[in-house]
Amino acid sequence: MQRTYTDELSGHVGRRVRLAGWLHHQRRLSRLTFLLLRDARGLAQIVVDGEPPHWHAETVLEVEGTVVAVEQAPGGIELHDPEIRVVSPAAEPPPVELRRPRLKEQLATILDHAPVALRHPRERAKLRIAAASIAGFRGALDRLGFVEIQTPKLVGAATEGGANVFAVDYFGRKAYLAQSPQLYKQILVGVFERVYTTGPAFRAEPHDTGRHLAEYVSLDAELGFVRDHRDVMRVARDTVAGMTDAVRDRAADAVALLDVDVPQVPAEIPSLDFVEAQEAIERATGEPVVGEPDFAPAHERWLGEWVRAEHGSEFLFVTGYPMEKRPFYTYPDPERPAFSRGFDLLFRGLEIVTGGQRLHRHEDYVAALDERGLDAAPFAGYLEAFRHGMPPHGGFALGLERWAARLVGAANVRETALFPRDRSRLLP
Amino acid sequence: MQRTYTDELSGHVGRRVRLAGWLHHQRRLSRLTFLLLRDARGLAQIVVDGEPPHWHAETVLEVEGTVVAVEQAPGGIELHDPEIRVVSPAAEPPPVELRRPRLKEQLATILDHAPVALRHPRERAKLRIAAASIAGFRGALDRLGFVEIQTPKLVGAATEGGANVFAVDYFGRKAYLAQSPQLYKQILVGVFERVYTTGPAFRAEPHDTGRHLAEYVSLDAELGFVRDHRDVMRVARDTVAGMTDAVRDRAADAVALLDVDVPQVPAEIPSLDFVEAQEAIERATGEPVVGEPDFAPAHERWLGEWVRAEHGSEFLFVTGYPMEKRPFYTYPDPERPAFSRGFDLLFRGLEIVTGGQRLHRHEDYVAALDERGLDAAPFAGYLEAFRHGMPPHGGFALGLERWAARLVGAANVRETALFPRDRSRLLP
Repeated sequence: MQRTYTDELSGHVGRRVRLAGWLHHQRRLSRLTFLLLRDARGLAQIVVDGEPPHWHAETVLEVEGTVVAVEQAPGGIELHDPEIRVVSPAAEPPPVELRRPRLKEQLATILDHAPVALRHPRERAKLRIAAASIAGFRGALDRLGFVEIQTPKLVGAATEGGANVFAVDYFGRKAYLAQSPQLYKQILVGVFERVYTTGPAFRAEPHDTGRHLAEYVSLDAELGFVRDHRDVMRVARDTVAGMTDAVRDRAADAVALLDVDVPQVPAEIPSLDFVEAQEAIERATGEPVVGEPDFAPAHERWLGEWVRAEHGSEFLFVTGYPMEKRPFYTYPDPERPAFSRGFDLLFRGLEIVTGGQRLHRHEDYVAALDERGLDAAPFAGYLEAFRHGMPPHGGFALGLERWAARLVGAANVRETALFPRDRSRLLP
Repeated sequence: MQRTYTDELSGHVGRRVRLAGWLHHQRRLSRLTFLLLRDARGLAQIVVDGEPPHWHAETVLEVEGTVVAVEQAPGGIELHDPEIRVVSPAAEPPPVELRRPRLKEQLATILDHAPVALRHPRERAKLRIAAASIAGFRGALDRLGFVEIQTPKLVGAATEGGANVFAVDYFGRKAYLAQSPQLYKQILVGVFERVYTTGPAFRAEPHDTGRHLAEYVSLDAELGFVRDHRDVMRVARDTVAGMTDAVRDRAADAVALLDVDVPQVPAEIPSLDFVEAQEAIERATGEPVVGEPDFAPAHERWLGEWVRAEHGSEFLFVTGYPMEKRPFYTYPDPERPAFSRGFDLLFRGLEIVTGGQRLHRHEDYVAALDERGLDAAPFAGYLEAFRHGMPPHGGFALGLERWAARLVGAANVRETALFPRDRSRLLP
């Protein structure tokens, strides 16, 4: 008999079906035993007359039974007259209480036991939302004519800031783990004009915050022949809209289970200049912020509240960040060279996308490296691209775990990473 | 005026258009100058009356001109009466001769100058085929109900063979780069039943061959509730068919340019038992191969010829490899425990997929690790999944660069990697 999934039962009322999955919970009620079986798609209740053997939760079972509509059953459906076969026993009770509607254990315990804890319907739902998001990212950029690229993670030089880079023993010499695909995606604008890539990025982040990981999934895009950063922002807007659409379409069950409020992305996301934003914060809060090189988290939250109240938007672009806080490849605003053509996209008061226009002339790179006191030698391959003709271009990056955390309302990015890595965590 | 791409010109005959791209080649012919402009999609010829300034090849230009149908022009189309604007100059001639129909330089030179060499129409076409392949992989598995996962590349223990693993300085202690997502994709069968992932895998491969890289892109899938390895092979077959379909659909221009013979994947790929295959090789070649634990490359080629001649197929499954050459998690054939439920898929006489059924009972893992003299401690997280109920499952992996190389007929996987990494190469 072919297998039926738990979410297909309502189409089989009155028939015998075969389910397969994990024993989520087992309880006795007078002369009946109720089993809850979990498969990849949901849960189903099985009613056993009398008392079957006691199995540990998470035992893998196959169950043939008759589908019956029962108003008071979960989902209105039960399986009666079951024949149960143990496929694979569990050796002991699970290390976290999966049967609860929400896991009650501390985050550290949940992460220690991730191989089992991720089976909880709410935990795995977060990861389905992450999976739908990454599919939406690729789909949106595919439609815009971007080409997917794969960039190396082992690199010869710590080009993007030496402090928080991981060193690798590479056949007896030193290599580094790429902190981003930035230099490669720019080089490949010279090949394909429009490129994207999704993959791990590595930061030897010494701080233990709820927003940073030592390894995270970076979603990166870069495009050539732009007029300025506004062309990049339009693509970033369309990409984020593609991600929210994909979450709605591809992860509808997860959205419903977690009661996620998937945002509407305005056709034109409101945009505020960095200094104007500082002035607005200063007027509203009385705090002296004009002149600071970046926003504090509290100020990003204020901006999130402001754009929701003023424009009914959950998204806000801030443009024109000071050059001093942006990387060397940032294109300065020709009118105000201390400020950049860089932007951030805030979602519910948290920066989720960073992007901007980049320098594209070889001599501008030579000058920018020189001005920052950076040695040009480690950048030889990168600079070669610019010596041989590069168009005006720009791009953006989005951290998948941070995006997913903001979307599902998780306070810590570790809740939306599969097996998070930080200063103290390298297992499981 | 909106930009037109070179492959759209035939729809604009008689009209003024604006092109943008790189100066691919410039040559004088009596009183005319012919410019070849390259953009992301192709080439276009521009005819200039008289002699424009000499620009280095790869200078970025914008050209407005009138589209004219001219029989002897490349593609039957030319741009006349151009107005040309230099967007971004090239500082010197390119380090490889991009104007040639094929690059003539040595592979080492091409790789040294990859940031520019990849701009060659044939070089970038190979990477478009790789991009289409990975999209086809994901699409096929999406349709089969698989969930995309992201697995960590920084791991706490060198679990898959200690010799060819890279060590990382991780906040003062030792971490390793994952040699594959194997352990994580198995764990996640317990969560989603069917999972796939695409991303970098790292092997400190000491040998310098045309088939190995120190970093490659691994396409991995794993599925639960299988009867045996044959269920896994069916999914592998459908996935490879999805990849070839995507190459045809999404990379048609690249296929045409490189004259790639995209294979038909038979509905049922022929399959041969390992020992039967050895016997056939022995009968045909007279070489004593029965009893060897694996095939030599020449024997894989022989099998490729055989399956083409006998079955008209470019693909061949070989099943039942000896246990001694397969990893500890391999499921043995219950009838012949020295042989496995592992398989390889050969494409044109080269192994491109490795897969099989895995052990799923906790006690089998404990025994298998013990038998191979492996310490169970580093596997604690992995074993936790099996202690708490795992269904019979299996999966497979495919190396993207190797697949793409075989497809386009490249002798070396370095030709289908963006920036290959090997013992001696860590740049650009």
